[in-house]
Amino acid sequence: MAKDAEVAETYSGKDYQDPPPAPLFDSDELVKWSFYRALIAEFIATLLFLYITVLTVIGYNSQTDTKKTGTDACGGVGILGIAWAFGGMIFILVYCTAGISGGHINPAVTFGLFLARKVSLVRAVMYMLAQCLGAICGCGLVKAFQKSYYNNYGGGANRLAAGYNKGTGLGAEIIGTFVLVYTVFSATDPKRNARDSHVPVLAPLPIGFAVFMVHLATIPITGTGINPARSFGAAVIYNKDKAWDDQWIFWVGPFIGAAIAAFYHQYILRAGAAKALGSFRSTA
Amino acid sequence: MAKDAEVAETYSGKDYQDPPPAPLFDSDELVKWSFYRALIAEFIATLLFLYITVLTVIGYNSQTDTKKTGTDACGGVGILGIAWAFGGMIFILVYCTAGISGGHINPAVTFGLFLARKVSLVRAVMYMLAQCLGAICGCGLVKAFQKSYYNNYGGGANRLAAGYNKGTGLGAEIIGTFVLVYTVFSATDPKRNARDSHVPVLAPLPIGFAVFMVHLATIPITGTGINPARSFGAAVIYNKDKAWDDQWIFWVGPFIGAAIAAFYHQYILRAGAAKALGSFRSTA
Amino acid sequence: MAKDAEVAETYSGKDYQDPPPAPLFDSDELVKWSFYRALIAEFIATLLFLYITVLTVIGYNSQTDTKKTGTDACGGVGILGIAWAFGGMIFILVYCTAGISGGHINPAVTFGLFLARKVSLVRAVMYMLAQCLGAICGCGLVKAFQKSYYNNYGGGANRLAAGYNKGTGLGAEIIGTFVLVYTVFSATDPKRNARDSHVPVLAPLPIGFAVFMVHLATIPITGTGINPARSFGAAVIYNKDKAWDDQWIFWVGPFIGAAIAAFYHQYILRAGAAKALGSFRSTA
Amino acid sequence: MAKDAEVAETYSGKDYQDPPPAPLFDSDELVKWSFYRALIAEFIATLLFLYITVLTVIGYNSQTDTKKTGTDACGGVGILGIAWAFGGMIFILVYCTAGISGGHINPAVTFGLFLARKVSLVRAVMYMLAQCLGAICGCGLVKAFQKSYYNNYGGGANRLAAGYNKGTGLGAEIIGTFVLVYTVFSATDPKRNARDSHVPVLAPLPIGFAVFMVHLATIPITGTGINPARSFGAAVIYNKDKAWDDQWIFWVGPFIGAAIAAFYHQYILRAGAAKALGSFRSTA
Repeated sequence: MAKDAEVAETYSGKDYQDPPPAPLFDSDELVKWSFYRALIAEFIATLLFLYITVLTVIGYNSQTDTKKTGTDACGGVGILGIAWAFGGMIFILVYCTAGISGGHINPAVTFGLFLARKVSLVRAVMYMLAQCLGAICGCGLVKAFQKSYYNNYGGGANRLAAGYNKGTGLGAEIIGTFVLVYTVFSATDPKRNARDSHVPVLAPLPIGFAVFMVHLATIPITGTGINPARSFGAAVIYNKDKAWDDQWIFWVGPFIGAAIAAFYHQYILRAGAAKALGSFRSTA
Repeated sequence: MAKDAEVAETYSGKDYQDPPPAPLFDSDELVKWSFYRALIAEFIATLLFLYITVLTVIGYNSQTDTKKTGTDACGGVGILGIAWAFGGMIFILVYCTAGISGGHINPAVTFGLFLARKVSLVRAVMYMLAQCLGAICGCGLVKAFQKSYYNNYGGGANRLAAGYNKGTGLGAEIIGTFVLVYTVFSATDPKRNARDSHVPVLAPLPIGFAVFMVHLATIPITGTGINPARSFGAAVIYNKDKAWDDQWIFWVGPFIGAAIAAFYHQYILRAGAAKALGSFRSTA
Repeated sequence: MAKDAEVAETYSGKDYQDPPPAPLFDSDELVKWSFYRALIAEFIATLLFLYITVLTVIGYNSQTDTKKTGTDACGGVGILGIAWAFGGMIFILVYCTAGISGGHINPAVTFGLFLARKVSLVRAVMYMLAQCLGAICGCGLVKAFQKSYYNNYGGGANRLAAGYNKGTGLGAEIIGTFVLVYTVFSATDPKRNARDSHVPVLAPLPIGFAVFMVHLATIPITGTGINPARSFGAAVIYNKDKAWDDQWIFWVGPFIGAAIAAFYHQYILRAGAAKALGSFRSTA
Repeated sequence: MAKDAEVAETYSGKDYQDPPPAPLFDSDELVKWSFYRALIAEFIATLLFLYITVLTVIGYNSQTDTKKTGTDACGGVGILGIAWAFGGMIFILVYCTAGISGGHINPAVTFGLFLARKVSLVRAVMYMLAQCLGAICGCGLVKAFQKSYYNNYGGGANRLAAGYNKGTGLGAEIIGTFVLVYTVFSATDPKRNARDSHVPVLAPLPIGFAVFMVHLATIPITGTGINPARSFGAAVIYNKDKAWDDQWIFWVGPFIGAAIAAFYHQYILRAGAAKALGSFRSTA
């Protein structure tokens, strides 16, 4: 209780409390069931994310393959449907896991929150492992269900489309991930929470929409990664040269984008909030 | 009041209360109007669900039938539109019936909630009957309105698409229903309710989206059941061999998926919550 | 205050208050600015509703007209886009006008709420006039903007599609309007409001989705009316025989559907609520 | 405190408080970090808005170009996908920036709020500059990424479609912007806030939907501006005669539409609220 009061005093100029920064190594975490439960939740969520989305991609490619008889160029869910699958799954999975693991489901999000000291290094690394493992299993399930379709229709792997150079692909991934991680920071800002307690419940919807939007824009360029676990899982299961050649883009791009978003939120928007409050009070 | 206090004491380590498990047989239920009202609400909701969705499916097939003159391969609402019809109807029907019957509209959801002891056995069985009856009437209405279209365009019945074996279809139904019932459990968790009282109002949206997502992914494989009443009602009214041959898949799959979701939520996520809270308190 | 206490006593068995039934004739209303303001809001909202939706319909028909050169069968927003236009406009217009006029924007909704004694007869009649006038002006704007397209592409008027008889059209309108008005009643139930005060804010979303869903299902049959003002306005401006021949369907159908929804909500669901509460209390 | 009490007294007939009108020139603003932070947020948000939406437009045009080999008339996200991109981005960007800058992202919205005296003249002008600069940078990024596609496929610039005259285009912009700004005023009305404190959180959704709806209706006519910064940024980067010839439509139209919406809300709906309250009280 004494400690709580002190913290409250430190932030006495505000009507909200920033939680103290997460330690880099927190050995306490490792003995708690909640930590392992969170890993399981991240694993299952990423598995379901890849399973549903890659199945949608394969089904679309199969149904619109004009070389097959009985197919119809307009028969599938369309690229719009694929974008909905990615955005919509993030909406429901963030909604379901927010209370258990924080609902990252994406190493870039975990990296951004780690840079902002919202999660410890240990937790960040373990989350990323769970996410990559989940992504591999999700893609594996799709391949197990329909091996020939999976291989024929590209396995849902991210790769640079013909006609774009690596710089463009990297740029598209950086800005796309910035949009996503910026939305995550805005939606989970403790300042916002303090004033309106049900933001955490609403937060999954704009986060899911951010994923939907970025897919609409960049599917023609890279197939849209903005989630290294998604790209890695698909590459492991599809396992062809093209998927591995560009793989670095889908790790470097999202991590740079997440870092810029963390910097923008912490040093421009939030630092500003503190200063603004100061200037406001001094003139009052 | 005394009883309330006792219950509160039992759960004194938490800021929320789990309701006591529902009894298997609750004879009190049977003399209450609210029980029969709930059955009527489930019946009407499932009827409307099948009516709107099967009408959408038939209309799409009719408008994109390239053998008919005056039709156009892009003329219908698309598979994306069909997926929206299923997901959107679940959203509004869960919204409308949540306060009356709990808003199941799906025997697999009822089965999952029964396993988690949220509803009694009697209620579960009666709900399933009401749902199946509603589904039959909903499909019957569509057939009464447009008999020739209904029979020509497959009657909205679920069946395994050519090129997929029964194992794949069963697997797709299991995982699809897991996604749905996992979302239902997350959205209606009393722990979440206690902390944020308007989740029940928001809950219908992610539940509807879960249905939308699963349809995007598995329409090419099974037409997407994940709701035994939906599959059963369409099979009864369409009543052709193909619809009955695969019918077991659309009962066994959803029930297995719902059981796994109930297990995952009750024994991994919720049990974990209790333990985590304990370990947190002991270190404080 | 004394009157308030009496009312509260009358309903003492409940945690919410039903407002007293609206009188048939309320002369007080007619001297209040808020009444005329509500009429203006209904007029403007229906005008915007018809303007945006009919423009979407005409634009779609124009862009997918395969007889024109330079067009493309898949070039428009699709029937899915048209369904979104109707549903989405109702969402935002109900959101904007709910606090001013109650956000009816549809004579069938006004009729249903009148039957349930939520609005007086005078208000109901005046709302319907404002809605029809708004619909005529909205369609008129579209025609003024693009007269030749408007006439060539059907003017957004509702009519029975070839191959359906009048009974089918009437049935489709009845059930479609039932879905909409049932959602309206569920969303605006004072019982729900009492327990969770922000339902009125969320209510526009499921109401908009109900309109979206019904359009997905019945555009191929009647073009989807479920709103007599919408059908009447388009018929007045398009003014061709076919649009007038079927006009009665788009008044009789929606009014019957709204009446059934009002009956279902007031006599099955709400009456049940009172009885259920009674039986619950007597056993407690 | 004394001042607060006075203000409260002035408005004592209401259960909410209108903030006092913003001054035309507020020199205090210019020394606060929060002012510059808001400009940065508007700049970044408009940049992201144009980047994602123009990329979506270019990608759609590229994938459906039937003169290219390997393309497919149904291959892109469709006009429906483009409309979602514009509406969805406004949803997430208003959600993210509402607490920092008010979330305008559109000079027409800023102009409407300035007319209603919600923002000072200095702030309005600076916001518009930041928005235009952000729009130019967003389009510039797209062009930098894919120069040849950008120039070949129209650069996302607004222009009047063949077959429509300037009056029609201007009218479409006026009414479209009216729909948007009317929704903004309804969603941010302090009267609504007072009664239901979480409207500001929900407000971004109907605002985003308003943008989505207007795009569905008017993409075939003008490509849909309703945001002068969006039209200006695309024209600057695309920089061809056609884009500049019609540019005035995309400034005059939105500003007129915003002015009408401000007038409608302030003098019809809100003034009415005050009077209505008066008449209600005098009869009580």
